[in-house]
Formats: sequence, C-alpha cells, structure tokens
Amino acid sequence: MNLSNLSRRDFTRLSALGTLGVAAQLSDLTSLAAPTGQVQSGPVPSSKPVGYAIIGLGRIADHFMAGCQDTAKSPHPSKVTGLVSGHPEKAAAIAQKYGVPKSSIYTYENMDEMRNNPAIEAVYVALPNSMHAEYSVRSAKAGKHVLCEKPMATSVKDAQDMIDACKAANVKLMIAYRCHYETTNLAAVKLIRDGHLGQIQSIQSAFGFSCDPADWRMKKALAGGGPLMDVGIYSLNATRYLTNEEPSEIVAYSHSSLTDPRFKEVEENVVWMTKFPSGATATCNTTYGAQMDGYFRVYGSKGWLEVNPAFVYDGLRLKAEYTDDQGKFIQLDQPNPEKDPIHFTNEANHFSTCVRENRTPQSPGEEGLKDMTYLRQIYHSAGLNNL
Amino acid sequence: MNLSNLSRRDFTRLSALGTLGVAAQLSDLTSLAAPTGQVQSGPVPSSKPVGYAIIGLGRIADHFMAGCQDTAKSPHPSKVTGLVSGHPEKAAAIAQKYGVPKSSIYTYENMDEMRNNPAIEAVYVALPNSMHAEYSVRSAKAGKHVLCEKPMATSVKDAQDMIDACKAANVKLMIAYRCHYETTNLAAVKLIRDGHLGQIQSIQSAFGFSCDPADWRMKKALAGGGPLMDVGIYSLNATRYLTNEEPSEIVAYSHSSLTDPRFKEVEENVVWMTKFPSGATATCNTTYGAQMDGYFRVYGSKGWLEVNPAFVYDGLRLKAEYTDDQGKFIQLDQPNPEKDPIHFTNEANHFSTCVRENRTPQSPGEEGLKDMTYLRQIYHSAGLNNL
Repeated sequence: MNLSNLSRRDFTRLSALGTLGVAAQLSDLTSLAAPTGQVQSGPVPSSKPVGYAIIGLGRIADHFMAGCQDTAKSPHPSKVTGLVSGHPEKAAAIAQKYGVPKSSIYTYENMDEMRNNPAIEAVYVALPNSMHAEYSVRSAKAGKHVLCEKPMATSVKDAQDMIDACKAANVKLMIAYRCHYETTNLAAVKLIRDGHLGQIQSIQSAFGFSCDPADWRMKKALAGGGPLMDVGIYSLNATRYLTNEEPSEIVAYSHSSLTDPRFKEVEENVVWMTKFPSGATATCNTTYGAQMDGYFRVYGSKGWLEVNPAFVYDGLRLKAEYTDDQGKFIQLDQPNPEKDPIHFTNEANHFSTCVRENRTPQSPGEEGLKDMTYLRQIYHSAGLNNL
Repeated sequence: MNLSNLSRRDFTRLSALGTLGVAAQLSDLTSLAAPTGQVQSGPVPSSKPVGYAIIGLGRIADHFMAGCQDTAKSPHPSKVTGLVSGHPEKAAAIAQKYGVPKSSIYTYENMDEMRNNPAIEAVYVALPNSMHAEYSVRSAKAGKHVLCEKPMATSVKDAQDMIDACKAANVKLMIAYRCHYETTNLAAVKLIRDGHLGQIQSIQSAFGFSCDPADWRMKKALAGGGPLMDVGIYSLNATRYLTNEEPSEIVAYSHSSLTDPRFKEVEENVVWMTKFPSGATATCNTTYGAQMDGYFRVYGSKGWLEVNPAFVYDGLRLKAEYTDDQGKFIQLDQPNPEKDPIHFTNEANHFSTCVRENRTPQSPGEEGLKDMTYLRQIYHSAGLNNL
C-alpha cells in the first residue's frame, strides 16, 4: 500500500485490520499492509454477539454504546446487554434505547449478581478513575471479561490487583487505549515502522483543556490526579507506541495557580521529558488550565510527521514530509474521513474478537500498568506524591 | 490597534516601530500600539549613514549587506563601508557591489588599522562562533561599535570579555537577535503582553536541520557546540521574550548517533525543559540530525498562539485563538508579507539608531551573556561539558 496516496478505501481497510486485531500488534505493524486470510472485503458471517454490561453511564459510555451498535456486521459483534448505574431513571432510558431487559439493570450494590446472567459476558468500566479497580475486580470475580477505561487505576498497586484478579478469574482484561485501534494513529506508526522517517530523533506532544470546576476530574479522591492522568496519558502512551520503546529516563515539572480555586486538589500543568534507549527523546505538555489540542509531531532523520488532532474522537489528520528511498520528496496531508463512534466500534470489535477467539488484547492490563508506573515517575519527578 | 485585523499597513507600522527601537522594549511592549512623536508616516530626513565594516563574508553577511541597502530612507541609515576577509577575490567582488573603496578592505591580520578609518563607525561580526570574541574585542579596541551575531561567544568568559572591552572602549555592543526586531515575533509578544492569552501555562518550541558534514558548524573548535548553539538558541531566547521572565530551573537531555560520523565533535540532539518564576514552563527541541522547522506555540489560560515558521528570514505566520474580554471568540491567521532582508534591515536600523542617538540596544551584550549562561546550564544538565 502506498501511504502517499491513502484513499478512503485504504482507510477502511487499515481500520478493519486494526479493529480485527489481526495486525494491530504495534510492535510489528509492517504486517499491516499485507493481506491476510482473516481480512474480508464484504459482509462476513457473524458469531453470537458478545454481551457487555456498561458500568457507569457518563459521556464516554454513550460513545461506547453507539460504537457497539455499529458492530452488527463484524465477525464478532458487540451488544449492550446490561447496565450498572446509580441513576435508575437514566438507566431505564438507556435500557429502552438499547433493548436491555429490566432484569439486566444493576446498581453498584447488587452488580455482583451479574454472575448469574449469561447474557452478560463482559463489562465496560467507564467510572471515575478511582473506581476502576474495585469494579474491574468485582466484575472479574463475577466471571466477566473486563474492558476498562484509562487511566487504568489511581495507584500502581490497584493496577496490579486488577491484573491479578482477572488472571485468577480466567477472564480477559483490556485497557481502552482507543488510539491503538485508530486508523490515523496506526498509519503514523506504520510510516515510522516502515522506516520512512529514518531514525527517530524526538517527539513533541501536548493534550489539555480548561477543566470545569464542577467536573469529577477536579476531585483527587475520584481522579487520582489532574490532567496528567486524564489527557497527558495520551501523549505518554503515544511516545511509547510511536517509538516502540520504553522510557529509560523521565523528568518533569508541575505548576498550579495558587489563586485559581480549581487547583486545590489536582495539579494544573505538567510538562515532562523522556529519553528512550535508542536515544530518541520526547517532550510533552498537559494542562487543565488552557486549551491544548491533542497532537504529536515526530522528527526523524529522513523526515517528520504530525498527527493533529491526534486524540479526539474524529477529524484526525496526518501530515508528513520525507524523502523516500528513490530520493523522491513525499508530502502527505491525509484528513481521516471516519466519524465518531468509529474508535469505540474498533475497540469493541477488538475486545470481542479476543473474547471469542481466546486472544490477548493488544492493550492488556500490563500495558495500563506500564503507563501507571511512568505516570508515577512523572509525578514524583515533579514533586507530587501521586499514585 | 486591533490585532484581530492586522493589515499590511499595520505590519509596516509594527515593523517601523520595531526597527526604530522606539517601542521595541520587549519588557513593555504595550507601548507598541501607542503613537509616539518619533514615528513618522512619510519619508523623514536622514542623518549621515552609519558606516559598517563586515567581518566575515559568509551567507548571513550577504543578508545583512542587502538589509543595509534597504535603510536608505531610514532616519539613521546603515551603509557597508568596509570589509574584513581572508579571501581577497571575494572581498573585491563584494566591495565593487557595495561601493567599498579598496583602501577599506582589510585582512584578519591588519583589521586593527580600521581605527584610522573614520568611514567605518561600526562592525558586523559574522564569523564562526569561536571567533566572535576576538574580533569583537579587537573592533572595540579600534574604536568601533560592535554588532555581533549570535551565539555571542563559545564561553561565558568570552562573552563577559566582550562586554568589558566594549565598555572600556566606550562603544556600543549589540547581539544580532533578529527576532527582537521582527514584526510577527513582536506581534506575538504584544498579544501576550496585552493579556489576550491570559496566564501563560506553557510553551513548545523547536528548531533544527540536518547539517552538512562539511559545514564549519560541525567543528567544535569553531562552533563551540552543536545545534543548541546555532539554532536551539532561537527557541531558548523566544521562551524568554515570550514570557518576559528568566528561567528558574533548566533540565536537558542530549543524544548523538554513535554511527553517524558527523557527530564526533558536536552533539546531534538536545531537548530541554525550563520553568519560569511565574510557573510557566517550556519544552524545546533542537537537532542537526532532522528537519525541524523553527516554531513556537504558547498556551495561555485564555487562548493560544503559534508562530510557524518563526525564525526563518521571511514567510512567518501567526495563528492565534482566544476569547476576548467581551466573550468574543477571536481567530487569527496572519501571514507576514515582508520579504528578506527585512529582518536585517530592522536590525541595522536599530543599531544605527542606537549609535546616532546614544541609546542602549534592545539586545545588548548582557542579553547575549544571559543566553550563554542558560546554554551552559542546558549543556551541563545534559552531561556535556561545553561553554
């Protein structure tokens, strides 16, 4: 596939490859372009949908549930078959929309009874960060596979407990790193893995926004930390999948306005710098005090690429300039035509494939745990005692 | 002046203000917009041109000499009246182009005789970095005002010696920080000083290129260091004039390819992070191993701005988004129509104004010395023993 001329069909195909999890091994993305027996061009026979209980009915859950609806023609579809909520009226309205029977609506108190409900095979944990561990562990103990939003937890210990509980219960655990299954991010990774940028020199990334004081994100007991936990994690994770390396050194600064009442519990700004074993470096910025569109730019010895925006639900755009092996100068500018909830559809497809085909997710609990340890290093380097 | 609607006339006026040095006090750029008695809208009477000897006839000297030619209608014009070179034929050709008499062409050996040449009042030092100190000091001792390219020197001690020599000789010393006199950079500073971005949260900047192995920049004895000295200094200096603060903390990483023979003497990559007293932070990247267009992006509590490109000789472009005091959302996209050698014209105008009106340049030796101390901190933090 010639990435200098990515068509809509190519996007669809890259997307399909990513969602099927066939070639989304970011460690070996060169196989992305190769045809495989599992890639189907037309509708394929569907297996019985994997039934999900949605735990926490906030905004991101809406996207995920819409994403599930678009999996009907996938080899392994995903279906909302249960709800866990503290708001009965909200749950009832959503149940009606997705055809969830009343008997499959649970509260936080009685959700362990899911173990007796065979229509629920997996859960999607979309609660505030500090609740991820408890509800993932309880779901595992109820025999359900766990797809948990990021950040995985609010302590390294909790993250390890989640892994252990899922292992003990013999259920799968996946952390919802959307970008691992997203076409434009995969195309950027492929450009790098194929060597088009040469040796990676450095990466710049940022992601932040001005946070509403009433948001649960401003409560440390719920969030565990500030923008680093919530959106900075996108930049951190991107530097890892772009380089395909683990940071060998991390250093960070943090600052919070003393006069802004929003930042009494969680930090306002974090900037950090990482060095990777190859010598590649990354500088990243995150904030709850300013609009900071999520993006990354990668500088290599033969060229550069930028994905901007990189982390939102749609409208992603890849730009790149490099000189190919024939000495030809290549300029790419590829807006991604895919629309929300495609990221969530991809994510659901990937996890349901793992469930049905007994595979390990591309972003398992161990991937979330790694980020947790780096987040902790960043916080500690910046003088904050989080995680 | 309404920056949301910068016209070509506004650019011309901002440019005139900058070049005259009238309001280019970056510490108080709010005065930029206010009319002053010294700003003339039409042609103004010119004083006798300030005569410059050009020391070192490389590429940047060509830009400066072209810039001087465009100062004819300035209140205090600048004129090339002498040349110092080790290449007689090259010097002869340039002398003919600029009407420099043969008697005003010097070698590096006999240039001290300039002291007897009243047509030369100032020098422009455009030699490799390690020669800046010697030739600035000799010029000062010959009674000439000194405009010296950046980086000021290859050691903090040399930089201090240059300041001392110019003080002792009662001549002016200016370091050629083009961007202090450049319209788009000034417009970015003004947007910040006027409060449109609110509290500055963080800055990202980069500048680098893939350096020719035959370039003098690759010789440590001539350059003093690698990309940090040559182009990284633009990002460093920008973070200072954008915040109007001095770094309180600096930390850096450096890496050089072990297999690339170019990086036996100078480093390949440097990334660094600074914290300022207000809490604002900056992350910067520089390299001789990749194309890295010079830019900066400033994130503030009320909005952001980006100048990209920011440091090249023309084609600069300012983008910004912010919410004004009336709650109106402002989007700026201002390409700067000015053409090279305008930056050098501005620079020459500023220094000649300082000479004729006995003013201190906006970027005096002390400004260069500050950057030298920060460059040294960056190098030392990265484990390199430069400067």
